Amino acid sequence: AMDGAPPPSSPAGLSAFVAVSQLLGLTLLATTGAWLGRYRGGVAWHSPLQFNAHPLCMVLGMVFLQGDALLVYRVFRHEAKRSTKALHALLHGLALLIALVGIIAVFESHRSKGIPDMYSLHSWCGMATFVLYLLQWLLGCGFFLFPGASFSLRGWYKPQHVFFGITLFILSITSCLLGITEMLLFKLSDSYSHFVPEGILANTLGVLLVAFGLVVGYVLTWEEWKRPPLAEELALSMDFKTLTEGESPGG
Amino acid sequence: AMDGAPPPSSPAGLSAFVAVSQLLGLTLLATTGAWLGRYRGGVAWHSPLQFNAHPLCMVLGMVFLQGDALLVYRVFRHEAKRSTKALHALLHGLALLIALVGIIAVFESHRSKGIPDMYSLHSWCGMATFVLYLLQWLLGCGFFLFPGASFSLRGWYKPQHVFFGITLFILSITSCLLGITEMLLFKLSDSYSHFVPEGILANTLGVLLVAFGLVVGYVLTWEEWKRPPLAEELALSMDFKTLTEGESPGG
Repeated sequence: AMDGAPPPSSPAGLSAFVAVSQLLGLTLLATTGAWLGRYRGGVAWHSPLQFNAHPLCMVLGMVFLQGDALLVYRVFRHEAKRSTKALHALLHGLALLIALVGIIAVFESHRSKGIPDMYSLHSWCGMATFVLYLLQWLLGCGFFLFPGASFSLRGWYKPQHVFFGITLFILSITSCLLGITEMLLFKLSDSYSHFVPEGILANTLGVLLVAFGLVVGYVLTWEEWKRPPLAEELALSMDFKTLTEGESPGG
Repeated sequence: AMDGAPPPSSPAGLSAFVAVSQLLGLTLLATTGAWLGRYRGGVAWHSPLQFNAHPLCMVLGMVFLQGDALLVYRVFRHEAKRSTKALHALLHGLALLIALVGIIAVFESHRSKGIPDMYSLHSWCGMATFVLYLLQWLLGCGFFLFPGASFSLRGWYKPQHVFFGITLFILSITSCLLGITEMLLFKLSDSYSHFVPEGILANTLGVLLVAFGLVVGYVLTWEEWKRPPLAEELALSMDFKTLTEGESPGG
């Protein structure tokens, strides 16, 4: 099927799935905002509302922006690889920054209220995900963005980068669901079991997070939607393969 | 690389990863048992301890057995496809039965204690996962195990089956983490934040669940470890392809 000439437009199914993912992503942000605004007093930095910056930043950074960063090779499938890579790194970098603000919010809020840090499964999963996400970003920049790494080294690292990238995205969503559950049990306690509107809304946010992950995951793993190499990339990669025939890039 | 003659033994890396997955799986069960036995009074059916059958059955069925069912095509890579399929369906069927027992345990326990059902994000995610898992199993049997479905229909459904299979496995693990968080906040409440041993143990169970999912996921998605078709399967599929040349099995 692959004959070197890239098709002129994106597959129709891909465009539909990407559109749905973006609608879901915006709905995620709106639902998080509605929850915090309507039931939790809104978001403010130097105030007792500082904690509320945490869920908002994590959903925006670790879910929506991270998910969109994963999609750039599918969406900009006919752009030069180098600019697509730069956008991929930039979106992940922005996600990391926003997540860092969200993490500072929860630590400062805990300190001002005398609540201990890092005791819950949510904090363990979330912190591990953030640290590994930062590491993955640094490794990604080192291997793919700067010219140091050899062709065979990149070939070895790429499938690892892809696997751990999707894994970290899944872990980010899982950590959000754990955070929603914690927050509802803390704030609602008994009334959660009486199906109060805030509980239903926050549960729905959890379901939307799963749906966003599902749609992004489907787009990423669908074989036919992977980015086809441009004609000049194919030629270049053939040259490299000829040069490095001796060593195998696989495991 | 694929020349029709299957290699005589499994790749060394695959065997090591499968061994680690089984060690992790057994550790999962031991850790769940230790938590329930040491801190929650053990497990018994017609008693106030009936609830405790829920976490045990879900970890055993929806995680360990479901994970092992996903691995059979990698572990028994040189067996006939038909027997491997039967084992895959059997393990999933067993997982479904054990999960059903676990679900009955929590509903009966709630009824005897007057606790409402299905209000939490854990219950929403868990129930959706179980129902879709049952549906996936029925569809899998219908498409692949009984002789009705045509070659091209199977070719269309297979990547969907694989994607949703891995998705349901991830959702099962996520639901377990949500359940752990709920149970700790209910049973430990304030003492959870003081790093009591039960909290640390149950958090560790959560981390082990993620680790099990990670190892199984790595084995499943590693291209070189996929099951190579046997020589006679290749010949057969060529015959079918020739017969059905006109219609394309892809989307």
